[in-house]
Amino acid sequence: MDAIHRSTLMHPRGASSILIGAGVAESATAEMAPWLEGRTVFVLSTPTLRRLYPDTVDQWLEPAARRVDLEVPDGEEAKTIDHAARLWQSMLASGGKRDSRLITFGGGTVGDLGGFVAACFLRGIAYAQVPTTLLAQVDASVGGKTAVDMPAGKNTIGAFHHPDWVVVDTRFAATLDPAERRSGLIEVIKMAFLLDPPLLALVERDLESLLAADPGALGPVVAGAVEAKRRIVEADPEEGDRRRLLNFGHTLGHAIESALGYRGLRHGEAVAYGMLFALRLAADRGLPPGDALRLVRLLGRLGLPDLPSLPSDRLLTLMAGDKKAREDGLVWVLPTRLGEGEMVPLAEDTIAARLTTFLSDPWRDRVR
Amino acid sequence: MDAIHRSTLMHPRGASSILIGAGVAESATAEMAPWLEGRTVFVLSTPTLRRLYPDTVDQWLEPAARRVDLEVPDGEEAKTIDHAARLWQSMLASGGKRDSRLITFGGGTVGDLGGFVAACFLRGIAYAQVPTTLLAQVDASVGGKTAVDMPAGKNTIGAFHHPDWVVVDTRFAATLDPAERRSGLIEVIKMAFLLDPPLLALVERDLESLLAADPGALGPVVAGAVEAKRRIVEADPEEGDRRRLLNFGHTLGHAIESALGYRGLRHGEAVAYGMLFALRLAADRGLPPGDALRLVRLLGRLGLPDLPSLPSDRLLTLMAGDKKAREDGLVWVLPTRLGEGEMVPLAEDTIAARLTTFLSDPWRDRVR
Repeated sequence: MDAIHRSTLMHPRGASSILIGAGVAESATAEMAPWLEGRTVFVLSTPTLRRLYPDTVDQWLEPAARRVDLEVPDGEEAKTIDHAARLWQSMLASGGKRDSRLITFGGGTVGDLGGFVAACFLRGIAYAQVPTTLLAQVDASVGGKTAVDMPAGKNTIGAFHHPDWVVVDTRFAATLDPAERRSGLIEVIKMAFLLDPPLLALVERDLESLLAADPGALGPVVAGAVEAKRRIVEADPEEGDRRRLLNFGHTLGHAIESALGYRGLRHGEAVAYGMLFALRLAADRGLPPGDALRLVRLLGRLGLPDLPSLPSDRLLTLMAGDKKAREDGLVWVLPTRLGEGEMVPLAEDTIAARLTTFLSDPWRDRVR
Repeated sequence: MDAIHRSTLMHPRGASSILIGAGVAESATAEMAPWLEGRTVFVLSTPTLRRLYPDTVDQWLEPAARRVDLEVPDGEEAKTIDHAARLWQSMLASGGKRDSRLITFGGGTVGDLGGFVAACFLRGIAYAQVPTTLLAQVDASVGGKTAVDMPAGKNTIGAFHHPDWVVVDTRFAATLDPAERRSGLIEVIKMAFLLDPPLLALVERDLESLLAADPGALGPVVAGAVEAKRRIVEADPEEGDRRRLLNFGHTLGHAIESALGYRGLRHGEAVAYGMLFALRLAADRGLPPGDALRLVRLLGRLGLPDLPSLPSDRLLTLMAGDKKAREDGLVWVLPTRLGEGEMVPLAEDTIAARLTTFLSDPWRDRVR
């Protein structure tokens, strides 16, 4: 058994205990026991994960009074208010109480939906996140953001509800589709570039091992990314300006995903293009060219699929409707230099001109 | 214009400003302006309230950028996740943002549903409660509890989300159905008996004027009840044991309402019978007979409708499924003496024996 990296995220309503390591989903069993003892425990997962890991969470449940399995389909289509309502009905029908527990075992979809289900069930029950994708491990599982999608937009309905436990077993990343792993690494790169230059250097050095899911390489990088996320969430638990730095690349990224109907590019891939565009806006405001080039080169090594052709006016409309927009317009996250960023409101015509050029050649900066 | 009673409820995420008085819905206009200035403001109400008070909230909205009216049907049937989802869709479609505002103008249903809609829209937007029934004024509008009903139980899905403003205009109570006003007064009596003996004395003295909606009598009683509620919420913002004292009379009360299909008795009336029953359990544990009799006599002056005949086993089953039950059984709120209460777990067979006797003659104690 490898060493467990431990940390504690303090938030306005308590604390989340974070455990990271290869095999930690098993080695955490004794530590989780008091939290589960004598409780009704709901375990939310998907058919694929139950098949891949039929007994990973089982061993935790010996001290529980009762286990109730909840299931949602694989993929983003599970993240609806209808699925949440169905789960609430089952939980009520099977006698869930305010002191019941919920464990979410899955990727970002399971974690976001499960967290929302826990947040609103009897006005909030305690839950644990056991993220199984790299993306969920380094991003969604930490910080208490929960959500479901509405036809009008992703993650538009939700709540802040921190898990009591986040159990990050880096072995799960090894079973991921490589493209899924790459998508998660892009979020690591985003955090590292804006918040943690030494972590960026580590990713630059180990990129190929990370893409190949080498456990020795993944451990420190996942722990570094989770720590960067933990620090920013503690500084700004409910997403004022500081935490919104994590939206670097997401303004255009979300619009690209939406314009493509969430097909063709993965979340991280769309965010990578969003970062490339934000770098151009940041260059206009004085981001040192060497810093920008470092990020462009690293993203270039990922071998991303091409950005499909998209009309800029469609993307502008989608960005104007972004849930992070405020009444006074869209605010962009732009790096000022490596390890630092700012929130900048920009007029739509400034964006429009830059966007058309960008879409015609997103990788231009790599070769200059 | 009468004097405005002001107070501030401090909670873990900020503060709620409370304004109470006859005519305060109008006189608060200037005070609300900075909160509304330049915002998209959603106003949630019902057809009946729009007809009764077509322009009460209108005058607030001059500084707003935009007003969007939202409507739900009158009555409890509006408090569903489907109505919440429909409202979220409209709010997204009409460009609601994170800095938009929501005003709930109505009774407890509008406040509970509207609060939940505000709590989850883009993970939480600021809102104001403008309660129009006595029950909502003294209870639901203060304290941040929001909820919708599920087929398996009332208020089972929800969130803690405190309003920025609670604007309690005591004139609205004058337009209520007298039975509706009486139902609200029962919650005042509940809080007064457990938390505030001087307020109980005031209600005993002025009961007939209060039932007749005399504004001079209502003002101090509403302010006293809201202050009692504010103090207990501040001491226990997310309902640990202290705040659960407010559930006095509600364990059996909820079961009665549910067994009757929410017809025949109003919420407060069912709670009154719940308190009568709790008094008997409390008497077994040493509640002074004089204290118990004082409450029985006051409730007796209300001229409540008779308790319909209900089988005790049905009520026991419903109580066992109460959302406030814990894994280890149902906890009762029992007064220990006037102005004090305790939380007591009681075995089901203790309850069963007492309940059968109680149902055969709920008012027995009044005449002894």
